[in-house]
Amino acid sequence: MKVELLNPFLDATTSVFRTMLSCELSRGQPTLKRNHSPEYEVSGLIGLTGKCQGMVVISLGRDTAIKAAEILLDERPDSLNKDVIDAVGELANMIAGAAKAQLVQFELSVGLPSVICGKNHSIGFPSNSTPILLPFDSEIGPVCVEVGFAENVPEN
Amino acid sequence: MKVELLNPFLDATTSVFRTMLSCELSRGQPTLKRNHSPEYEVSGLIGLTGKCQGMVVISLGRDTAIKAAEILLDERPDSLNKDVIDAVGELANMIAGAAKAQLVQFELSVGLPSVICGKNHSIGFPSNSTPILLPFDSEIGPVCVEVGFAENVPEN
Repeated sequence: MKVELLNPFLDATTSVFRTMLSCELSRGQPTLKRNHSPEYEVSGLIGLTGKCQGMVVISLGRDTAIKAAEILLDERPDSLNKDVIDAVGELANMIAGAAKAQLVQFELSVGLPSVICGKNHSIGFPSNSTPILLPFDSEIGPVCVEVGFAENVPEN
Repeated sequence: MKVELLNPFLDATTSVFRTMLSCELSRGQPTLKRNHSPEYEVSGLIGLTGKCQGMVVISLGRDTAIKAAEILLDERPDSLNKDVIDAVGELANMIAGAAKAQLVQFELSVGLPSVICGKNHSIGFPSNSTPILLPFDSEIGPVCVEVGFAENVPEN
């Protein structure tokens, strides 16, 4: 995947966590995702379409997801409930929206988020994409963002 | 969710299974999805964006997913491997593409599919959408399609 597609998602994630959650992320090393082994219990997915097609996934542990919802809502959810699902979907939405703003040349639109919960879920991307894994650490726990775009990305 | 958005997905699912898998689906009753309890072990997700934002999910059991891949590839995968993930992603892609063709007024683009595997995964949609569950039965097993669109769907 092209670096020009990757950096906006690194910046967007850092920026969304800073502004929406008052939480500083420290970046780990981006890596190619070589398998689809589970990462964390909660994943927010959102599609991007335009001159290229992509999917962004933000994955967090259960406690991190609940903590993020607590900060966003100013009230602690007592379980992995609808409020947490909405909060994780909204984080995915904001990250995709912030990245899109840096990728105007691809004329991207952001889809509807969905949120996967499950202790051993894995997320696979199609063979024609090479998803990149962006690991982050923070005071509320580790966070992982995966970005995959179809290979037929046009030159611009 | 508007019926005009729903019927194209019913038709698209039936049509894709008939033409790609030579498999006749029998339709169950569409219902509002009232919780996010797990349906089946494998789910293919794909986003749709344009004048409205949506997500389509096709869920199948492990054996049904492997059987679908076998029909598509003319070779039986020995496990829930990359071939099965590609096949389920491609089914999601074809269903979204066929539905999009019937929804030209929304100028939809189809995103990159992703495929969730996990015995107890659940898929939640944001509160501003009311996903509809479309259950089907077939000779290769039950199949469920969920369609959610954000509520701010424009009049056309």
